[in-house]
Amino acid sequence: MRLDLGYDGTDFSGWAAQPGRRTVEGILTAGLATVLRTPEDELSLVVAGRTDAGVHATGQVCHVDVPRPAWDALPGRSDLAPAAALVRRLRGVLPGDVRVHAAAPAPPGFDARFSALHRRYGYRLCDRPAGVPPLRRRDVVAWPRALDAAVMNEASAALLGLHDFAPFCKRREGATTIRTLLEYGWGRDGDGFVVARVVADAFCHSMVRALVGAVAAVGDGRRPTHWPRDVLAAAVRDPGVAVAPPHGLVLEHVAYPPDAELAVRAAAARSRRVLPHQA
Amino acid sequence: MRLDLGYDGTDFSGWAAQPGRRTVEGILTAGLATVLRTPEDELSLVVAGRTDAGVHATGQVCHVDVPRPAWDALPGRSDLAPAAALVRRLRGVLPGDVRVHAAAPAPPGFDARFSALHRRYGYRLCDRPAGVPPLRRRDVVAWPRALDAAVMNEASAALLGLHDFAPFCKRREGATTIRTLLEYGWGRDGDGFVVARVVADAFCHSMVRALVGAVAAVGDGRRPTHWPRDVLAAAVRDPGVAVAPPHGLVLEHVAYPPDAELAVRAAAARSRRVLPHQA
Repeated sequence: MRLDLGYDGTDFSGWAAQPGRRTVEGILTAGLATVLRTPEDELSLVVAGRTDAGVHATGQVCHVDVPRPAWDALPGRSDLAPAAALVRRLRGVLPGDVRVHAAAPAPPGFDARFSALHRRYGYRLCDRPAGVPPLRRRDVVAWPRALDAAVMNEASAALLGLHDFAPFCKRREGATTIRTLLEYGWGRDGDGFVVARVVADAFCHSMVRALVGAVAAVGDGRRPTHWPRDVLAAAVRDPGVAVAPPHGLVLEHVAYPPDAELAVRAAAARSRRVLPHQA
Repeated sequence: MRLDLGYDGTDFSGWAAQPGRRTVEGILTAGLATVLRTPEDELSLVVAGRTDAGVHATGQVCHVDVPRPAWDALPGRSDLAPAAALVRRLRGVLPGDVRVHAAAPAPPGFDARFSALHRRYGYRLCDRPAGVPPLRRRDVVAWPRALDAAVMNEASAALLGLHDFAPFCKRREGATTIRTLLEYGWGRDGDGFVVARVVADAFCHSMVRALVGAVAAVGDGRRPTHWPRDVLAAAVRDPGVAVAPPHGLVLEHVAYPPDAELAVRAAAARSRRVLPHQA
């Protein structure tokens, strides 16, 4: 089963279940166990983007194997389809900071993580002297200096393409940091916030927030426009790159190929990414 | 001094200061006392719209008399103007759910309450089966049935004009319920929410939320389109009108006349409103 969901990350210790912590995976698994009348340990969620503590999602995707009888029993005495009944019942049992928008039987070969073609994140900054409008303070970060969105757009464009993003990633033993940055642009939205749109095949840990921190330092005049590109070229983690706060970040969309290509895509994504000169 | 401000009403017991309660007036007065180094009891705020518990504002306006020396001392050693220094300092002392966007010396004759020409409120409903997107759950109300925004727009238009809105108001001894409803329209916004825009010279207690409740009952098919107009014509409070929840309501804008007309407008507003046949 494929689930499309959103959450306000403020009160979660991120996606991944951890003992004693309130996590999206933990809350969602418990909710599914209730409505599917299935033990929690028989439900194993696979997610497209393992978001960190405080990070939000509007377009998160996960999959989970569901026992057939539990699925068939979902409508109960209603005339709803099982998927619609599941969405409605989850609304009743989940807290208001997680919502499952849609549920559907996943097509053959679908893997929420490995079938994904790319992930899109948004990041929002507010550089008004008065600070962040109160109703947006959970997903917009106050920036203490004025930002030049055009210069930020120029600095971020220089990072596009297939690179080893190690300078912008927290190291994890044995994990590659080679990624393809497909889009990275900045602009002002209708509310006057300075907004990033960041798309990559996948992201390593803290990568989006480090890319934001590096380019924001250009936007407020502390670094020259070419600095983020220089950091990338240096190929080692740069302590001058500040990781931007989590609450400005939203996982907005995960793109998948047509159904017929899902399994092939998953096999390709499971193989380790390498740079052309390493291949 | 005129202050333009916004707040997330979720954790406030409304605008008006009450002993032992967390209110916007109380928090703002305390913040002003700190940055102006003036005792709280010498600062008396007058507000354009006394919002109820849970109601938000993006365009609230208030005024307060400030001792001249306190105003002149605001820049300290900075090169900011007093107004800019005040906004910046208030950002430092106020909690994130209140923000003063702008401060300025008020023109002669300005009264935040009585000089106002009209107030504009917004109200947001979400009728998706999945419920309200988590990041909007503080200012959007989940509606359990599908809504027809076009029919709601028709029902609300029938309420426009100068009327005694007593059927939609909580009674208050000695207070008139005669108001001019200047705009009341419904539509779907870019997020798919069903949004009201409501403008009147002034509103009596719970009036916007009762107007929303009456028209939402038309929108979800429980009442005929002409029902809100019938309620108005009956001229007595109708127990069938459900007052909609506070958290969908936002005070968005308060309009004032040109400076030269402020005092005249205030004098007119202070006089009791009457219907033409009572004049």
